Amino acid sequence: MSLQLNATHAPELRSWVESANQPGADFPIQNLPLAVFRPQGGNTACCGVGIGDQVLEIAACAPLMSDPLARSAAQACEAADTLNALMALGPEAMSALRAELSSLLSANQKTHREALQRALHPIDRVELLQPVRVAGYTDFFASVHHATNAGRLFRPDAPLLPNYKYVPVAYSGRANSVRVSGAPVQRPWGQLKRPDQAAPVFAPAQRLDFEVELAMYIGAPSRLGSPVAVANAWGHVFGFSLLNDWSARDIQSWEYQPLGPFLAKSFATSVAPWVITAEALAPFRQAVAARPEGDPAPLPHLLDTNDQAHGTVNVEIEALLRTERMRATGASAQRLSRSNASTLYWSFAQMVAHHTSNGSALDTGDLLGSGTISGSSADALGSLLEITRGGSEPLAIAATQEQRSFLQDGDEVSFRGRCSREGFISIGWGHCTNTVLAASA
Amino acid sequence: MSLQLNATHAPELRSWVESANQPGADFPIQNLPLAVFRPQGGNTACCGVGIGDQVLEIAACAPLMSDPLARSAAQACEAADTLNALMALGPEAMSALRAELSSLLSANQKTHREALQRALHPIDRVELLQPVRVAGYTDFFASVHHATNAGRLFRPDAPLLPNYKYVPVAYSGRANSVRVSGAPVQRPWGQLKRPDQAAPVFAPAQRLDFEVELAMYIGAPSRLGSPVAVANAWGHVFGFSLLNDWSARDIQSWEYQPLGPFLAKSFATSVAPWVITAEALAPFRQAVAARPEGDPAPLPHLLDTNDQAHGTVNVEIEALLRTERMRATGASAQRLSRSNASTLYWSFAQMVAHHTSNGSALDTGDLLGSGTISGSSADALGSLLEITRGGSEPLAIAATQEQRSFLQDGDEVSFRGRCSREGFISIGWGHCTNTVLAASA
Repeated sequence: MSLQLNATHAPELRSWVESANQPGADFPIQNLPLAVFRPQGGNTACCGVGIGDQVLEIAACAPLMSDPLARSAAQACEAADTLNALMALGPEAMSALRAELSSLLSANQKTHREALQRALHPIDRVELLQPVRVAGYTDFFASVHHATNAGRLFRPDAPLLPNYKYVPVAYSGRANSVRVSGAPVQRPWGQLKRPDQAAPVFAPAQRLDFEVELAMYIGAPSRLGSPVAVANAWGHVFGFSLLNDWSARDIQSWEYQPLGPFLAKSFATSVAPWVITAEALAPFRQAVAARPEGDPAPLPHLLDTNDQAHGTVNVEIEALLRTERMRATGASAQRLSRSNASTLYWSFAQMVAHHTSNGSALDTGDLLGSGTISGSSADALGSLLEITRGGSEPLAIAATQEQRSFLQDGDEVSFRGRCSREGFISIGWGHCTNTVLAASA
Repeated sequence: MSLQLNATHAPELRSWVESANQPGADFPIQNLPLAVFRPQGGNTACCGVGIGDQVLEIAACAPLMSDPLARSAAQACEAADTLNALMALGPEAMSALRAELSSLLSANQKTHREALQRALHPIDRVELLQPVRVAGYTDFFASVHHATNAGRLFRPDAPLLPNYKYVPVAYSGRANSVRVSGAPVQRPWGQLKRPDQAAPVFAPAQRLDFEVELAMYIGAPSRLGSPVAVANAWGHVFGFSLLNDWSARDIQSWEYQPLGPFLAKSFATSVAPWVITAEALAPFRQAVAARPEGDPAPLPHLLDTNDQAHGTVNVEIEALLRTERMRATGASAQRLSRSNASTLYWSFAQMVAHHTSNGSALDTGDLLGSGTISGSSADALGSLLEITRGGSEPLAIAATQEQRSFLQDGDEVSFRGRCSREGFISIGWGHCTNTVLAASA
């Protein structure tokens, strides 16, 4: 295993912020996810790092840091309302910053507690903002289970297209559709055409759906004309968030030929406020599974060495639904699926290599979505399209006797993520939670 | 006609910059296109306006302006290396700036000539830079002739898909692929699969093509959740440039299903350095042609009133080819096509309305491409794909006895644009010219 694990991953490490040491905490000292927040009553945004139930202002810690690289990274957070300046510094700077923050927050550190206390804010008393100014947004299609399930609805006998096992299929999305968890998602209007109608109508979408995805954020940019090899791909990866790729299936099915989805996706894309750094994920990185017998090998430029240092991430993602009636009756959310990015057919390293293989550049702040993450089992389907087989088998909601083919106004969709591995402290990804608003009048 | 023509369009208006008064000049005083340039020997970029064979620094003119709105617009150009800040001010500010610049450059104006002379630079002695920092890039498919010609290669009996006459089909492109005319365009590598091969290979694209398009730049942004009506669309349009949507047909045909083109387009998109303002184009705006009998009317939210104030632009665009051998032998460029944006099936106003119809926002600096502009005749085809019928009927190059199915290394492709109308001074669009470099080793 060529993974670089360091002291920040040590399972015995504990923080003097006691809430970080609770079993099952999302943000133990081994995680230190990044966010941008506005303190209560304040009007300027700060870059911060999550620790237990608190968020720590990074820039305020700069004077306490002894490593010049870490200090300059912390200074890049000064007066910054996004993480982009920090992201652009590359992995060494982020690693140095993480090491210093880990040291300052560790239970062994006694000298700077007062200054640090002043820079801590309870998470439930800050406003979490969009963490990254998204440069470009690309969405992949990396789950073979999702591609098969979605394809089967159109082509029962040949669900996977011939290019799937060669090309990490992707399309450019609309970067300004990306907004942070909590921002309202309004049901879009669009052209809808039912098979039994001769012409489309312009109306609110009826087949509104979510898609469970991961967002990979690019830190160090790549150069125009210089493809990034699979082996070097992670050097450009800053971190990951939960992502919900809201989709209007009825708009999509009418508009998408021949140039792909457009208005069916461009109305909203939600990301969690917490960016889990590539380094925090080191213990949970995992090679993509061996391809089934009979599948072609990837072309040489996409060959992942199946080394854990490249591949994908072992993160389990739950999708939860709470309807308006469930909230009114105090019913707890119903889990719709539980899938894992370790089941992706194409690794994140392969996505980076493919994206740059024609010579195009990656920029700091680029967001590469994984595509819907579905597993092979019925309880691991990352969209209602798959769960209800295109709406034909509605989902039963036990607590309220409701049914759902697609999302209704007032439905709240929430994703949660967690990485676990024997011998390591489990880390959480926070959540990405949004409620569907009715279409405009 | 509800077009707003004003004194800046008057055909009798002449400039004291004599080269602007030459018949057939691209940049008479009625044009005043915008650009960003670096003066010879200088290292800072300036926003400028073209006049004859000169470019005038806009910020330097601010102290000479009496209208406060114009002066603040000129001040938005100070220390700006893109036009974005000016664009964000909206059409009234741009109109006021244009009126002042027209007045300062007019032959009747005598008092400020010395100060203005100091702010003038010969165009052939400056470096023209990328004028707009592109926020999002959307590419439409608005020419029915192109859609039909391209579709016929795949579906001879049903070239147009059923959605075409209802949906102004578009996809999101890669914004960082947009670079200014003159920047090298390197032949991309990619996955290519010939019909007679069982598997793809990774190799330099063999079917490299150009596409004649217009770029429409968004000035005043629109708000999330607030669709822009056709009648209000031009209020968000800052201006237009020539655009070459470079395309690798062999990468595209293998990758594009089911999510549309990606690496086939993301390696390069070229724009001319000159932005022709919406106001300069007022005399040349034109309703889209009446739909042929039997075509459905657009849905109500896309109904263009066929008023000249909305529609499209009467601009003729020539595409020219000069191979390496032609340059070596001194042969002049061969014209490949001459098409006109007045033949588009969907107007620019309809594109804006469609883009925002699901509630998504337009940002200052968004680039909306028209899609390939082809006309109905054989000499009005805006891509080699169409000219050579998918490569099956190579183009003969008379001067050198060469042939082209698709572009070869060293080929120079140049677009030129011109608006003409009886009773008005004709204006030129400059050119967009790039040479194909060999693929990387």
